[in-house]
Amino acid sequence: MSDVYQDSVALHKKFQGKIEIHSRMPVTSKAELALAYSPGVAEPCRVIQKDPEAAYDLTLKGRTVAVISDGTAVLGLGDIGAVAGLPVMEGKALLLKEFGGVDAIPLVLNTKDAGEIIKIVTALSPTFAGINLEDISAPRCFEIEEALQEIGIPVFHDDQHGTAIVVTAALRNAAKVVGKRYEDLHVVIVGAGAAGLAVGKMLLGLECTSASCTRLVEIPAVADVILVDSKGAVAPQRTDLNSYKKAFSEFSNHAQKQGSLADVMAGADVVIGLSRPGLITTEMIQSMAAQPMVFALANPTPEIMPEAAKAAGAAVVATGRSDYPNQINNVLVFPGIFRAVIDGRLRKITMHMKLIAAESLAALVPEPTAELIVPDPFMPGLAEKLSQSILDQLK
Amino acid sequence: MSDVYQDSVALHKKFQGKIEIHSRMPVTSKAELALAYSPGVAEPCRVIQKDPEAAYDLTLKGRTVAVISDGTAVLGLGDIGAVAGLPVMEGKALLLKEFGGVDAIPLVLNTKDAGEIIKIVTALSPTFAGINLEDISAPRCFEIEEALQEIGIPVFHDDQHGTAIVVTAALRNAAKVVGKRYEDLHVVIVGAGAAGLAVGKMLLGLECTSASCTRLVEIPAVADVILVDSKGAVAPQRTDLNSYKKAFSEFSNHAQKQGSLADVMAGADVVIGLSRPGLITTEMIQSMAAQPMVFALANPTPEIMPEAAKAAGAAVVATGRSDYPNQINNVLVFPGIFRAVIDGRLRKITMHMKLIAAESLAALVPEPTAELIVPDPFMPGLAEKLSQSILDQLK
Repeated sequence: MSDVYQDSVALHKKFQGKIEIHSRMPVTSKAELALAYSPGVAEPCRVIQKDPEAAYDLTLKGRTVAVISDGTAVLGLGDIGAVAGLPVMEGKALLLKEFGGVDAIPLVLNTKDAGEIIKIVTALSPTFAGINLEDISAPRCFEIEEALQEIGIPVFHDDQHGTAIVVTAALRNAAKVVGKRYEDLHVVIVGAGAAGLAVGKMLLGLECTSASCTRLVEIPAVADVILVDSKGAVAPQRTDLNSYKKAFSEFSNHAQKQGSLADVMAGADVVIGLSRPGLITTEMIQSMAAQPMVFALANPTPEIMPEAAKAAGAAVVATGRSDYPNQINNVLVFPGIFRAVIDGRLRKITMHMKLIAAESLAALVPEPTAELIVPDPFMPGLAEKLSQSILDQLK
Repeated sequence: MSDVYQDSVALHKKFQGKIEIHSRMPVTSKAELALAYSPGVAEPCRVIQKDPEAAYDLTLKGRTVAVISDGTAVLGLGDIGAVAGLPVMEGKALLLKEFGGVDAIPLVLNTKDAGEIIKIVTALSPTFAGINLEDISAPRCFEIEEALQEIGIPVFHDDQHGTAIVVTAALRNAAKVVGKRYEDLHVVIVGAGAAGLAVGKMLLGLECTSASCTRLVEIPAVADVILVDSKGAVAPQRTDLNSYKKAFSEFSNHAQKQGSLADVMAGADVVIGLSRPGLITTEMIQSMAAQPMVFALANPTPEIMPEAAKAAGAAVVATGRSDYPNQINNVLVFPGIFRAVIDGRLRKITMHMKLIAAESLAALVPEPTAELIVPDPFMPGLAEKLSQSILDQLK
């Protein structure tokens, strides 16, 4: 029987990885060498020295992003170290090329020191049009991303924002399917890592630092979010919260509920699992409001299997898996986001752009059903459509 | 009239740089996506976590090098900054691909702090099979390279060692042309930057740190080298030398000569210019020993033009230019060196390997003449031959 794991190792060995470098310029004669390299290349250098913006036109900078990780939160594998994370980062570069037409370079760093990572990414920024941070554990990922917002090129932590955009898009369409207003939804999120917090912030339209959050009033938001971590519901009364959860708690869980996942799921419209297998039970779903929406996104084994969720009454079920309908997969988003970064020469990815991305992604399924709330990742032109929507609405 | 500088800018704009990313693995279906990315990719990660060496087989690491610069000593342009150096680093990556079949990624760093550069390159090492340092100014380049010798992958500063290897090969053949023994040669080097010091060390078979040098007795050496900087001959009596020149002075200029370039060139067999246009005069060449060899390598304008050097009596003349015979160009060496790094999975580039490279390069011109002391860079299979020679002799 074929085994996806063994087949993957064999394929990686056969190709020795997933991306490679190709030349764009001919070098077959001394004349061509003199143009591509010495002495001719001195002039593009001088042009860029006078006007650093020219690097976007004259070098790979204008079309290349870096995929950077320290290997501390790789897939569901955890802190496996820099070099062991390389297959995922190279995979991300492959998907950026295949789905978005974006040149991307994987870089894994053998340091876990947030301060050093910030210095390194800052130092690397002249080569790239944008940075995709990947698989860096929380809460360091928040600190790192926050510090990197002003380096002059966009820094996007896909585990946070890619996930938040796809989940938001999926929830918009799921709400339509069950006939509820998005603005009325009461949402429970279980799992308070990078993805859980980011989804919570996007659903509530919050922009947060380690110190505090701001509600962006122009952004549509759900009625409430209750975030649940390993100690239970995140609420302002708790004294064991890190600064990021603390800031979030002030703007969520409006009733300041305390208790377990089971306690807070009672009466909720939506539960979003970003944690680990088996956490959501049949009884919990049965305790939810009518027409419950269940996003069980732990990979590869969800918090509850779709069959069980449906049997318990879930009206819409989504997972991270390709073998069930409604696959919530970041590949729906990050190629289009970086396509927009390249085509629009964006210098920052704002909450406003992320919201446009979520709305555009949702709109690509004009008539959602319980089995179709997000597009297929292989939908032709998906990344281009997303990018175009973002750039059109920025004009 | 065509202008190499304007043509180069136009070509860079047309292609938007010189290298790009291509996919090696198909991703056209959910099944392929499951092998190249989630969930299949978890297994290559686990394999590498258990055995980091497996990264050479399962990822781009096994065939990819980084070309890293801080933009402080770019071509003859000097300290033009990181992003302005990018066309040169991307050019180097292009040449590594075209001449050596090596995948290379340009990375420019916007820091000049040697300590930070050491930390950054160390942190980046898990992604790569080797590092080509480029266009980093002296003496920081010595400090940086020395600190990076034990990070587990080879670190090669091409401006030093690439230049030293080509010059050594060229001098071997030039000595044959004029019928002098290499071991008897008295050499003057003008220009005591990265290249000048490295050439001096290789000609004398020295391995040096900032503190001291060691004479590698198994390596053939010339009789003496006198290095000349902007203050005159480098000699142990001088009190204004940096630690690298100081260490070198203890093992060179055996007669402890002092004075100007003109003073020390009298009676020398060879002069090697790695400085700036116009420094070598007709009179200086006329003061040299019989059959003088003149390598005037400043780019693009040599220390003396070949016509003038010949008129003054030079028996062999070399420059850095493609429009004269005997072009001393690092492209003769670095593609082969990194081909050997990849094919042999080398973990360090030793002085012994560099010497093999110089000998192999010289041997590719079996019957040298005054107009042919180094091979043409477009010689078919040059990098493969060099790499094969190195790997054969390491066995």
